[in-house]
Amino acid sequence: MTTSDKQAIETVIERWMAATKAGDLDAVLKLMSDDAIFTVPNREPFGKEQFAEGFVQISKMKLRGKSEVLELEVFGDYAWTRNRIQIAMENPDGETIERQARTLTIYKREGDGEWRLFRDANLPA
Amino acid sequence: MTTSDKQAIETVIERWMAATKAGDLDAVLKLMSDDAIFTVPNREPFGKEQFAEGFVQISKMKLRGKSEVLELEVFGDYAWTRNRIQIAMENPDGETIERQARTLTIYKREGDGEWRLFRDANLPA
Repeated sequence: MTTSDKQAIETVIERWMAATKAGDLDAVLKLMSDDAIFTVPNREPFGKEQFAEGFVQISKMKLRGKSEVLELEVFGDYAWTRNRIQIAMENPDGETIERQARTLTIYKREGDGEWRLFRDANLPA
Repeated sequence: MTTSDKQAIETVIERWMAATKAGDLDAVLKLMSDDAIFTVPNREPFGKEQFAEGFVQISKMKLRGKSEVLELEVFGDYAWTRNRIQIAMENPDGETIERQARTLTIYKREGDGEWRLFRDANLPA
């Protein structure tokens, strides 16, 4: 485990949140592997394409928030993190919805040397 | 990654389910690290002690079910799995509740060479 791997993964997490706030779908998609799988409650696990469909809905709202890394460990070409996410979404009517979530996520260093999100479990808190 | 590591983790998963059905708390506790952390929706993440308290409640019911390994990868002293759990709980009144869940779990090979559950996210499906 090297400090630079940890920093690379923290950078992915920061870019993910920044791109989400900016509604920049292309930037978010570049931060996940093509075979990424997302697990959320009460729904079948889904991949990149369905993530993109959901993102388009969320990007209509103004977002504030942060993703705080509680734990991060790297081993070879994989890493896992446990995060606490706090987010406030303001919809076009000016209503604000606040959400908290916990995540358990696996990152993978792919063939091009870049770390990307690979498996993610997202649980409302 | 060796076949024997994969088999060892599959054995932990099988023993976990068997001990849960048998209401054998001690056996389940031996299959997790002392610093295990469980993440479920709408609750703060919790450790071994709170797991044990919840287990005592569940063990009053008769359980049937299975935990199916969808993905399993080992890297050094860590491994991760993605499972589909199907469970039917019959309470003392004879009522049966069926539950499905998806899990994303990290296992760790500890100093004594045994694989144990280390981080777990459990999402109702």
